[in-house]
Amino acid sequence: RTTLVPATGGRITGGLWAERRRVNREVSVTTGWDRLHEAGNFLNLELAAGQQPGQAYVGSLPFLDSDLYKWLEAVAWTFADPDLDEAGEARLEEFLTTSARLLEAAQADDGYLDSYFQVNFPGERFVQLAWGHELYCAGHLIQAAVALNRTRGDARLLDVARRVADLVVRSFGSEEGRVDGICGHPEVETALVELYRETGEQSYLDAARYFVDRRGHQLLGGHGFGAHYFQDHTPVREATSVEGHSVRQVYLLAGVADLYVEDGDDTLREAADRLWHEMVATKTYVTGGIGTHHTDEAFGDPYELTNERSYCETCAAIGSVMFSWRMLMITGEARYADLVERTLYNGFLAGLSLDGQRYIYANPLQVREGHMAGGNDRDYARKPWFKCACCPPNVMRTLASLEHYVVLGGADGLRVHQFVPGSWTAPVGDAEASVSVVTDYPWAGRVAVTVDASPGTWGLTVRVPHWAGGATLTVNGEPVTADVADGWASVTRAWEPGDTLVLDLPLEPRLTRADSRVDADRASVALERGPLVYCFEAVDNPGHRLDDVVVDVAGPVATASTDAALPDDVVTLAAQGRVRPRPTEGWWPYADARSPEPGDGEAVTLTAVPYYVWGNRAPGAMRIWTPAG
Amino acid sequence: RTTLVPATGGRITGGLWAERRRVNREVSVTTGWDRLHEAGNFLNLELAAGQQPGQAYVGSLPFLDSDLYKWLEAVAWTFADPDLDEAGEARLEEFLTTSARLLEAAQADDGYLDSYFQVNFPGERFVQLAWGHELYCAGHLIQAAVALNRTRGDARLLDVARRVADLVVRSFGSEEGRVDGICGHPEVETALVELYRETGEQSYLDAARYFVDRRGHQLLGGHGFGAHYFQDHTPVREATSVEGHSVRQVYLLAGVADLYVEDGDDTLREAADRLWHEMVATKTYVTGGIGTHHTDEAFGDPYELTNERSYCETCAAIGSVMFSWRMLMITGEARYADLVERTLYNGFLAGLSLDGQRYIYANPLQVREGHMAGGNDRDYARKPWFKCACCPPNVMRTLASLEHYVVLGGADGLRVHQFVPGSWTAPVGDAEASVSVVTDYPWAGRVAVTVDASPGTWGLTVRVPHWAGGATLTVNGEPVTADVADGWASVTRAWEPGDTLVLDLPLEPRLTRADSRVDADRASVALERGPLVYCFEAVDNPGHRLDDVVVDVAGPVATASTDAALPDDVVTLAAQGRVRPRPTEGWWPYADARSPEPGDGEAVTLTAVPYYVWGNRAPGAMRIWTPAG
Repeated sequence: RTTLVPATGGRITGGLWAERRRVNREVSVTTGWDRLHEAGNFLNLELAAGQQPGQAYVGSLPFLDSDLYKWLEAVAWTFADPDLDEAGEARLEEFLTTSARLLEAAQADDGYLDSYFQVNFPGERFVQLAWGHELYCAGHLIQAAVALNRTRGDARLLDVARRVADLVVRSFGSEEGRVDGICGHPEVETALVELYRETGEQSYLDAARYFVDRRGHQLLGGHGFGAHYFQDHTPVREATSVEGHSVRQVYLLAGVADLYVEDGDDTLREAADRLWHEMVATKTYVTGGIGTHHTDEAFGDPYELTNERSYCETCAAIGSVMFSWRMLMITGEARYADLVERTLYNGFLAGLSLDGQRYIYANPLQVREGHMAGGNDRDYARKPWFKCACCPPNVMRTLASLEHYVVLGGADGLRVHQFVPGSWTAPVGDAEASVSVVTDYPWAGRVAVTVDASPGTWGLTVRVPHWAGGATLTVNGEPVTADVADGWASVTRAWEPGDTLVLDLPLEPRLTRADSRVDADRASVALERGPLVYCFEAVDNPGHRLDDVVVDVAGPVATASTDAALPDDVVTLAAQGRVRPRPTEGWWPYADARSPEPGDGEAVTLTAVPYYVWGNRAPGAMRIWTPAG
Repeated sequence: RTTLVPATGGRITGGLWAERRRVNREVSVTTGWDRLHEAGNFLNLELAAGQQPGQAYVGSLPFLDSDLYKWLEAVAWTFADPDLDEAGEARLEEFLTTSARLLEAAQADDGYLDSYFQVNFPGERFVQLAWGHELYCAGHLIQAAVALNRTRGDARLLDVARRVADLVVRSFGSEEGRVDGICGHPEVETALVELYRETGEQSYLDAARYFVDRRGHQLLGGHGFGAHYFQDHTPVREATSVEGHSVRQVYLLAGVADLYVEDGDDTLREAADRLWHEMVATKTYVTGGIGTHHTDEAFGDPYELTNERSYCETCAAIGSVMFSWRMLMITGEARYADLVERTLYNGFLAGLSLDGQRYIYANPLQVREGHMAGGNDRDYARKPWFKCACCPPNVMRTLASLEHYVVLGGADGLRVHQFVPGSWTAPVGDAEASVSVVTDYPWAGRVAVTVDASPGTWGLTVRVPHWAGGATLTVNGEPVTADVADGWASVTRAWEPGDTLVLDLPLEPRLTRADSRVDADRASVALERGPLVYCFEAVDNPGHRLDDVVVDVAGPVATASTDAALPDDVVTLAAQGRVRPRPTEGWWPYADARSPEPGDGEAVTLTAVPYYVWGNRAPGAMRIWTPAG
């Protein structure tokens, strides 16, 4: 019940994402092993396995196992990376073998596996559902297991995961004697559908359906943040707005989309579609980030998109990509791919340092002069690891599986929806087509798609992003009139190997304003170029405070050479602006609205860098939305 | 070492504050007894006294005793209210006697008294200083005891409090064998100075000095929010900005001001003055509210004053008044009284429902259409009580002692710094003067001060608020040229009983804008009249969404008749504006900044009400800062 289907193979061969994946493979996943040992995640499972008598459980959060599972999923996907060298593969093999043996040893006879409960509450199972995260952890184990089975045909994790899933199937349900409940953190829903796909076992799909159906009936009971924190306030089919903890919401909706694909229940599709549009229209930052509130890591009210305290958890960006990618396959509509792109390049990628060793939990759209760090996980500075380390391994597994998010097949052709150098094979009808992509995107707008294998006559379709007016197409160097509709440009012909379709996207820098109901962005602009949102950083704009800067909306915005401290290919922007004089100082900062405001100030050229590189050089102020002058 | 000294007597006889005090006396303090029983505060102390074997400690917060102490302080101050009737006094007497006996029974032989530790961690004392709140609770007990001793000469609480204080004095210090530490929540500092004043016991003052001096040296150790959460990041004399938990910060600074008064240490005065100005210039909302962040209840960065998520804890407004009032007495500068007024009428008073039965913890400056309540203490809706019920009894004790915040004496005269109907006696040099005030302030601008008792020639001084241009003065009906300087107007003469000085303050409605560095208020205005900040509520502006409203800055703002559901005397405002058409709908809410914005919309008359009455009629959107058209 999807319009589009995943490519069966993919290799990313160059450019921005290949470099991010190289760093992920060589640095992040490897240091992840060290961090997970330092943070106690391995020790806790060893305790569950009875291997470390006398040691105490490390940490207080009930979902530490899931950090290890997400990292294992990254390991599993990385096995499929053609650029993995022998030494790297041997290292991953050691990681995997050690981990798989540990999980086998820790798993109870009946299949239960959750070190937090096994060590701290022996015998207690599925009774602390609101905050226990047992099914959440199970879901991440399942996803790692499915990944490993897909990439290597290696069932070591799958055997463990199936025993867990079988226990869940046996334990939960509305029938007498079972636990009628759901997990406080959605995740197992999408995982169980995937496990069903991998194994064909119907009971996993049935369990996923049960968990989706039962959410929204306040089974989780009272909680300080309210039922909507868990999306337990109303059944998903009746919900009209995304609410509560943003990661929970988008993970749930990814599962809802998955369930629709298997069940064909249109009420699920309608709900997912309705909530996606509400989320995007009223609760999504220009970076693609979601989640306004720090306190409960939650969506705010409609149009409540404050910049200084944007939460924009990195995990929420990942969940948004998961959700949108599923909706793209279901609907075939380009807007979902547009949001995947925006989120990957901005809200997601900013979560990781360029050197692959530091992560950020909450992504600000603005850092003030005088910002004082809080000292906690949610600081506006990247850190090697967190007490609540959900984001780092989530970044790893996303980068490690990124080749899936580029090309899709379908009944009548192949679609390139993200512009990444590499090669892909995808189903086209009952056959397959292969393409290679050459591009310097996002720095340059030319995307060349060469057909490597063709099953005859089919449509080669490329996405035309919603920001790209004036895109042009050629085939083998000749201009063509493509069918351009709803964000796609498509050329149907008898494609021969060697044929090349070239898409040229205009990458003029753009000045963007927000919906007037977004108070936080009033009378302000953001700079964009291609899929990238730009920001001003203090390090690039010395001599004046970003608090005092105004951008000249009528002035030109030019591309500029990069800072030597940034990777060579990063394109920076130069905008014209002014440094507004400080208002007359006084003890009270509010004044008569009819009194004259500080007038024009010194003209300056302002330098902007892609948002995803912010905070990699020197600490200091940063802002995306800047007053328009 | 103060310029001004407290009035020795005061009676509030009418107007807004008399009504708030009546409700406080008749409703809030009485229901407080019920709430404190329902919430377990009494039971916990009974457990500490060994009176309820088999019962379990109620609640998880370590500072529940302080809720009861603040309520007891309200009881104590209320005894001095001349409007307290016999039945009311008998009820308070019962509350007091029951409570005093309970505290005597719960107090350990060595003076220790803290039900949380006595019940949950028997024998554990002063070892969980970062979060234990033992000294914070002790401070509130001391304040209640001082209040009762002052109002009635009743030492029942004072005896208990002194035993606690003596234990603190014996237990803490840098000497060998003592605990070298401070409390995670400042409060005991100001309380110990007050206890020193009440008793003359030097060791209490020495302990206050020790606690002020030792903060800022990271004695509290690591914490998720960082040392500045506790103001433990740097010694107060070296601090250049208010930081961290806002209630902690202003309570500390109140104690610093108190310590300066007794010690004359100019470095303390300089620090308090410097931090007050930094707080007001960069971290204070137009309501006088302070504290931007929900997560750590903390000040934000400079100019980070978001409206949708303004924290503005009611307790922080109270602490700000405590701090500013002390600075007013120290410096004699009117700006401190200006902030006291602004905070009392807006940031503080909004914390309580008109019926005196519901409170709000976090005070928003804006509530969006579509706002979904979180279900926790920090909801944007007033509630009867909280899990963390620090604010309700804090409101009670402030209203019960409000007569102290109106008139001050001094070497050369008497100052009326708040405009409240009633009568006051204050020291003037070595003698005393008495005045009566008649006014309909804040609804009308005329303030008549009649001399009731005069010691000869002295200055009768009234504050001219910083927003009041064109104020005029008469004495006995004749215009006078007063000495007007720095926010004060003063007439020095041989005042006779019956002489009346009349101050006329212009109350033209004002349109106010914020410092341009406050991003949240960009291109927006707030309506004010006199000391009151106004807001738009959905209930007064039916037919259009507040998200779409624009205020015409050039248009007139008129006073209007009140809504029938509001108290009779409330003056509402009518402003001219427009309802901006919705931007063209689309899936993505960000657009080319050079494309046309939605144009002019329907002209409307907008109704604004004083911020302090918001949320008393129907739930719905509310906003103070509104786009300027």
